[in-house]
Amino acid sequence: MEEDISVPIDALGRFAEALLAKLGVPAEDARVTAELLLDTDLRGIESHGMAHLVDFYVRRIQSGEIEPRPTIATTHDALSAATIDGGRGLGFVVGERAMRLAIEKARATGSGWVSVGNSTHYGAGSCYAMMALPENMIGFSFTTGGRRMTPPGGLGRTMGLNVISVAAPTPRGFPYVLDMATSVVAAGKLEIAQRRGTPVPEGWAVDAEGRPLTDPQAWDQSCMLLPLGGLASTGAFKGFGLAILVDILTGALSGFGTSTEIDGGRNAAQCFGALRIDAFVELETYMERMGGMIDAIKRTPTLEGVDEVRIPGELEHALAESRRKAGTVPMHPAVLDGFRQAADELGVPFDLVSEGATA
Amino acid sequence: MEEDISVPIDALGRFAEALLAKLGVPAEDARVTAELLLDTDLRGIESHGMAHLVDFYVRRIQSGEIEPRPTIATTHDALSAATIDGGRGLGFVVGERAMRLAIEKARATGSGWVSVGNSTHYGAGSCYAMMALPENMIGFSFTTGGRRMTPPGGLGRTMGLNVISVAAPTPRGFPYVLDMATSVVAAGKLEIAQRRGTPVPEGWAVDAEGRPLTDPQAWDQSCMLLPLGGLASTGAFKGFGLAILVDILTGALSGFGTSTEIDGGRNAAQCFGALRIDAFVELETYMERMGGMIDAIKRTPTLEGVDEVRIPGELEHALAESRRKAGTVPMHPAVLDGFRQAADELGVPFDLVSEGATA
Repeated sequence: MEEDISVPIDALGRFAEALLAKLGVPAEDARVTAELLLDTDLRGIESHGMAHLVDFYVRRIQSGEIEPRPTIATTHDALSAATIDGGRGLGFVVGERAMRLAIEKARATGSGWVSVGNSTHYGAGSCYAMMALPENMIGFSFTTGGRRMTPPGGLGRTMGLNVISVAAPTPRGFPYVLDMATSVVAAGKLEIAQRRGTPVPEGWAVDAEGRPLTDPQAWDQSCMLLPLGGLASTGAFKGFGLAILVDILTGALSGFGTSTEIDGGRNAAQCFGALRIDAFVELETYMERMGGMIDAIKRTPTLEGVDEVRIPGELEHALAESRRKAGTVPMHPAVLDGFRQAADELGVPFDLVSEGATA
Repeated sequence: MEEDISVPIDALGRFAEALLAKLGVPAEDARVTAELLLDTDLRGIESHGMAHLVDFYVRRIQSGEIEPRPTIATTHDALSAATIDGGRGLGFVVGERAMRLAIEKARATGSGWVSVGNSTHYGAGSCYAMMALPENMIGFSFTTGGRRMTPPGGLGRTMGLNVISVAAPTPRGFPYVLDMATSVVAAGKLEIAQRRGTPVPEGWAVDAEGRPLTDPQAWDQSCMLLPLGGLASTGAFKGFGLAILVDILTGALSGFGTSTEIDGGRNAAQCFGALRIDAFVELETYMERMGGMIDAIKRTPTLEGVDEVRIPGELEHALAESRRKAGTVPMHPAVLDGFRQAADELGVPFDLVSEGATA
C-alpha cells in the first residue's frame, strides 16, 4: 500500500471551498461543506470525509444530481417539529440548516425535531449531532443509506445502510458521540478489506445464495450486508428494526420516501433532533450523572491486551485534538490524484502537497 | 415441561387488580397496571407480563421497595420537555402518566419528551410507545435495566440491560413495534434456556474469564451478557453505544442516576417521547410511505424455510388478536401457583382456573 501524505488543514479547506465555488456553490455553503468534511477527517472517519469530495460531491454537481444553488423550503413548521424540502442541495448545506432549526426549537421549547427529504449525501451524521454540544443539548441525526442490506430471513438488498448518530456533552474532556450504520458494518469497511486484501470476518455479509462472505474480492452487487446483530439468533431483528426506525423518521415522516423506495445514499432523507438539557434537569446534575457513568465504565476490568474501556467518541476526539495541533490530516495519494485532476479541469490552483511529504 | 394453562383474560385482569388493591394501590392505578400486564401477555411477551405479577410487583410493594400510593411530581416542565420524579411508584403508573404528558406536549407543539427517575420496573417498554398509536404519533420509551452487561473490551457487569422501544402507525393492519434490549438478548432468554436445558448460542454471554457461555446452567452472577453486536469485530460498540444512549435519556437527563449507578431494573429511570405525525407531514402521505416500505420489505425473496419477512411487531399483533378472540392467555402452572399463594395470603378470591383446563 502507498503511504498517506500529510496535507495542511487550512489549505485543504480552502481548496475544497474553491472547487465547490467554481461549480456555482455560494461561498457560505462551500465553507460549511468544507468545514464539515474537514472535521470528519480530523476525527479519523476517512470513509466520510474529503476522500469523497470529488466523486460524491463535485461529480454529482457536474452531473446535475446535486443542485449547487438549491431552494431549501420549510414545508411544515410547528413549535417543536418541522419538515424541510432540501431541494436536492448538498446534504451538508441542507443538514446544517435543518439541525440549526432543531436547535432553535429546542432552545424555545425544550426539544426540536426536523425531518428532511429531497436531500443528498451529507457525509458523517455525527457532524450534525455534534452541533448540539456547544448549546448544552443532546443532538440526534439520522440518514438513509444506499440499499445494500437484507432483512433477516430474506435474501435481497431491500434496506438502506441507514445511520443513527447521537452526541451528548460529558464533563470528562470528550463528548459522547455515537455514529453507527444499522448494519453490522458500514460499506466502507468492506471496501477497505478489498483494498487491503484482508479476509472479511464471518457475520458481516452474505453472497447471493446467503452463504457467509469471507473473500473481500467476492463482494459485488449481488451480495448483502447483514443487519446489526448478524443472525436471527444473535439479534438481527434489532438491527433491522433500527434501520426501519431511521426510515420512519426520515423518509416516512418527511414524506419524501424511505430507503426501500429511493436510492437513500444519493437521494437521501434525513432527520435531526435536539433536546435542551436544562429543560429536563439542572446542567450540573446532568454532568454529575454523566461523569459518574463514564467513571463506572472506566473502572470495568479489561480483557487481556485492552488498556481501558473506551466511550464512543473518545478516541475520535483525541485524534481530532492531535491532528488540529499538528495542523495536518493524512490523505491517500489516490485521493490527492483525484483532487489534482478536478483542480486542473476546473482551473483551481492545487497547492496541497509539498514534494516528498508523507504522513 | 408442564403444559401451560388457559386463563380467561377478564378474570386475570380482575384478579391482578384485586391483589394490588389489597396492598393499598388506588383502584385506577391497579387498573392501569393490570391492563398493561395483560396487553403484554396478549402479545406473547411472557417474560414481561403477568408471570412477574407476584415476584416483581406484589412482593416489592410488601417489602416497601415500591410505594403503593406514590407522590409523582413533575420537577421540570417546558413546552416540549419535562422531568418526572416517580416517587418509587409502580413503573406502570409512573410510565403511563409520563407517556400521557409526552403525548400532550406533542399534541401542542409537535413533539414531547419526558424523562423519569425514581421509578421502578415498568414491564414491557412497548406498552408506553404504543400509547402514541391511536393519537397518530410515533411513540418512544426507554428504560434502564439491571446491571448484567459488559462493555466491549471489558469484563464486568457495568451496564444495565437497557431497553429501546418504538411504535409507529402503518396502513397494513399492524403497527411497527420495536422492543429491544441493547444486549444481544434479554436476560429472560437465558432463563428460558435454563428451564428448558437447551444450549446457549455462542455470542450471547461470557463467563467470568470472558469465555463464551454455552451451558445455560453455568449462567450465574459472575457471567455477563454481551452488547448487541456481540464481538468488537461485529459491532459490539454499537450495542454498547445504544445502551449508553438509554442511560443518557433516562438516568442522566432525569438527574436520578444511570444504570451504572443504580440497580436499573428495580430503581429504574425511564424516558418517553412522542412525535405528532401531522406536525411533519400530512398523515396520508406518511401512510403511503409506510405502506410502500412494508410492501418493499415483504417483496424480499426469503431464505429456505422462511415464509415471509416479518416487520417488528407484526407477529405480536397477530397473536394478540387471536388471544383476544379466544378470550384467554396461557399461563405456566408455576405462575398460577404463585398467584394462588399470594391470593391466600392476602385474602383475595382465586378463580382463574377450572379443573383440568390446559392451553
